Amino acid sequence: MSKQFDVLVVGGGPGGYVAAIRAAQLGFKTACCESNPYADPKGEPRLGGTCLNVGCIPSKALLHTSHLFEEAGHSFAAQGINVGTPKIDVSKMMARKSSIVDQLTGGIKGLFKKNKVTLLNGHGSFVAKTPEGWQVKVGEEVVVAQQVIVATGSTARHLPGIPVDNKVVCDNVGALDIDSVPKKLAIIGAGVIGLEMGSVWRRLGSEVTILEAMPDFLAAADQDVAKEAQKLFAKQGLKFELGVTIGEVKIAKKGVSIAYKDKSGADQKLDADRLIVSVGRVPNTDGLNAEAVGLKLNERSQIEVDDHCRTNLPGVWAVGDVVRGPMLAHKAMEEGVMVAELIAGQAGHCNFDTVPWVIYTSPEIAWVGKTEQQLKAEGVAYKAGKIPFLANGRALGMGEPSGFVKMLADANTDRILGVHIIGANASELIAEAVVAMEFAGSSEDLARICHAHPTLSEVVHEAALAVDKRPLHF
Amino acid sequence: MSKQFDVLVVGGGPGGYVAAIRAAQLGFKTACCESNPYADPKGEPRLGGTCLNVGCIPSKALLHTSHLFEEAGHSFAAQGINVGTPKIDVSKMMARKSSIVDQLTGGIKGLFKKNKVTLLNGHGSFVAKTPEGWQVKVGEEVVVAQQVIVATGSTARHLPGIPVDNKVVCDNVGALDIDSVPKKLAIIGAGVIGLEMGSVWRRLGSEVTILEAMPDFLAAADQDVAKEAQKLFAKQGLKFELGVTIGEVKIAKKGVSIAYKDKSGADQKLDADRLIVSVGRVPNTDGLNAEAVGLKLNERSQIEVDDHCRTNLPGVWAVGDVVRGPMLAHKAMEEGVMVAELIAGQAGHCNFDTVPWVIYTSPEIAWVGKTEQQLKAEGVAYKAGKIPFLANGRALGMGEPSGFVKMLADANTDRILGVHIIGANASELIAEAVVAMEFAGSSEDLARICHAHPTLSEVVHEAALAVDKRPLHF
Repeated sequence: MSKQFDVLVVGGGPGGYVAAIRAAQLGFKTACCESNPYADPKGEPRLGGTCLNVGCIPSKALLHTSHLFEEAGHSFAAQGINVGTPKIDVSKMMARKSSIVDQLTGGIKGLFKKNKVTLLNGHGSFVAKTPEGWQVKVGEEVVVAQQVIVATGSTARHLPGIPVDNKVVCDNVGALDIDSVPKKLAIIGAGVIGLEMGSVWRRLGSEVTILEAMPDFLAAADQDVAKEAQKLFAKQGLKFELGVTIGEVKIAKKGVSIAYKDKSGADQKLDADRLIVSVGRVPNTDGLNAEAVGLKLNERSQIEVDDHCRTNLPGVWAVGDVVRGPMLAHKAMEEGVMVAELIAGQAGHCNFDTVPWVIYTSPEIAWVGKTEQQLKAEGVAYKAGKIPFLANGRALGMGEPSGFVKMLADANTDRILGVHIIGANASELIAEAVVAMEFAGSSEDLARICHAHPTLSEVVHEAALAVDKRPLHF
Repeated sequence: MSKQFDVLVVGGGPGGYVAAIRAAQLGFKTACCESNPYADPKGEPRLGGTCLNVGCIPSKALLHTSHLFEEAGHSFAAQGINVGTPKIDVSKMMARKSSIVDQLTGGIKGLFKKNKVTLLNGHGSFVAKTPEGWQVKVGEEVVVAQQVIVATGSTARHLPGIPVDNKVVCDNVGALDIDSVPKKLAIIGAGVIGLEMGSVWRRLGSEVTILEAMPDFLAAADQDVAKEAQKLFAKQGLKFELGVTIGEVKIAKKGVSIAYKDKSGADQKLDADRLIVSVGRVPNTDGLNAEAVGLKLNERSQIEVDDHCRTNLPGVWAVGDVVRGPMLAHKAMEEGVMVAELIAGQAGHCNFDTVPWVIYTSPEIAWVGKTEQQLKAEGVAYKAGKIPFLANGRALGMGEPSGFVKMLADANTDRILGVHIIGANASELIAEAVVAMEFAGSSEDLARICHAHPTLSEVVHEAALAVDKRPLHF
């Protein structure tokens, strides 16, 4: 007889493993199946998905090391720290990164054991609905589950005519495993991955050029932030070409030549040792055999779901990158928890309006809520407060005076509508903004809350004061 | 005729300059007098008080540099960053620190100009109450103000028989200006200043021994945090002797010899090249001529005030280190704002229950609200959630897996009563806990709020989940 589960989660990335753990905590007999290309030495499936294996986590390890490398080369002398010219040992940097990934993927396996989630080794694909539940083929066996949560994630989008070998031409997988510092690095796509990977290799010595099809830089971010970011990144040495049209890409063993039209329409050519293609991601629905059970996808190949991640099939849910909304690990995790709690009859809910965004460049970029251009487009009357880090003692102490915090609040109610940060530790500073917005807080609320001195969070405080035109330190 | 002001602020530290700026913003003709020992090359008073000149700000600059120095010596190699043995140029480190202080003190002068606060050069002391207002002597002139805000701050407590020359024997002033790395550094007092300065010089190569009279380490902190801190600091090489009684201290030109009884009562001797005395601070009320107007002090030489910083005299207020409560710059600033708003007839208020505490060691320590031992003593029924940074991807990426977040919530209402953090960036992470507590939030509130991945703030999130015994990542 087939193995029977209350809940089967298809995919062990952030949305999937969290859904599985929460479902098991709620008392369900839960399994999670995973089959991924990040080969484990023992041939076992590696949990954590793109995020943990070839995304957020390894990139943060490389960003940390490359940031310190840059500090050693550029800020140490002025602080009185004398070291010779720093040299990078790429293989050692990569080995450290891999050991962090190994530790965390292993950790999730431990969490599965602790929470009694059964880990199934294999790709999951629908077979049929039966009176006993949903039949899903996992590897060579067929299991049956009352409830199925699809969390199959996404894969890097590739461009026609540009085959990715993850040696010379890389997507996110290869970009995190380059074995030496490329003299010239080309990147197609100035999104989060392009900017983070571009930053890593620029710091380590690469000459980095980023080609972007869109005419605007970081169009999803508040445009004040985007402008500041572009200015700062250009000053650091990243080269940008916006509004380009990519033409023929010629790949040789030792390099790549990219023909493109610049924004004026003129023909240009960029030669590089390596190319990273980071032009977005596509949902993983191939191989799910959705059509066998009539699972509805939309025109973007996403599984169609409502706000509560219900698909068109009763007992089938989908979360994370495979459904609508931002492809962010923490959004997927929140959805995973929500679905498990809904299955348990609880009041699961996700507030998509307060999902924070982070880009781990230097300075970091983070935001939550509406951008100024969104408020303008929606005709919402708002007040803005904007304070630079330049006047902040902690930022000066850290040698990171760049950037600002901008707070947007409703002109009538003062409710905080958006907080936009470019500056040191923006990734952590955004948390208090999210909390304040979840409590439907006003800018005056944050202005009246005591912030520890000296901290970077004082800039958030001052931005709140600035909404009422009464900053104390600017 | 005497200069007349609506509001005179005596003292230009964090409490004073913020009170002055806020009073001026509210339309009052405002002056602030300052006369301090941090000689400006032009002989002008330097604003910012202890905090900016010889406290929080310069210490953070030295902590940053010494942290990078330690990273270079201890974590670079494992990350693949090859540098020679790092050497510290103390004079350059100090020059950078001083330039940051100069920039910020100058900045406050600029804020005074922008907000139209008159800066008076001189020490302020009461003369008399007249029908025109309070007469206060500032330097050689007497000015008159309707309202006086005393913000004279505090000075390091010295010990009898241990004369501080700020060369061999230093208080906070000299500790921030040591001109070479002492081979052996002794510190009396394991409080915030002792731990921060001990950390700076240990990282730079000193053999540091900290003598503390109290039998418990960091008695004000949650004892879980204190234990973890003591363990980690000892591992870093700081030596502690708790429960000591200091005896004779002999000072020679090149060093110091400290006789003390250890906790068992045995006689001990500690020889060192330098000694830092950091045993608390005393309020600055000498020279204020309080008795001339009958301004009431308490038995600890603090100016007696109510929760709204009113003294026993109508129209005389006092804020910051010179009054009851923790000697924290941000507490002083909040009081300064409150008093200015009360003078303007607004509803000024400070919530002393949500004033955060920070110690800028490595890892950092920060907390807000009640400790577990306080809740026990008060007989409050509580739940606790405690999560280590070890399981956090960002912490591993940064190479800072030490410490934990501990959240305490009311057993019946789930309201958050305290949050205690020891770990990387605790100083910034505490902000969301303060905000949540100001909104009277529950642990479930924080547990249901989306936290960006990968960030250290996820550990706060997990601690909230752990209060309900359902952590996802531990």
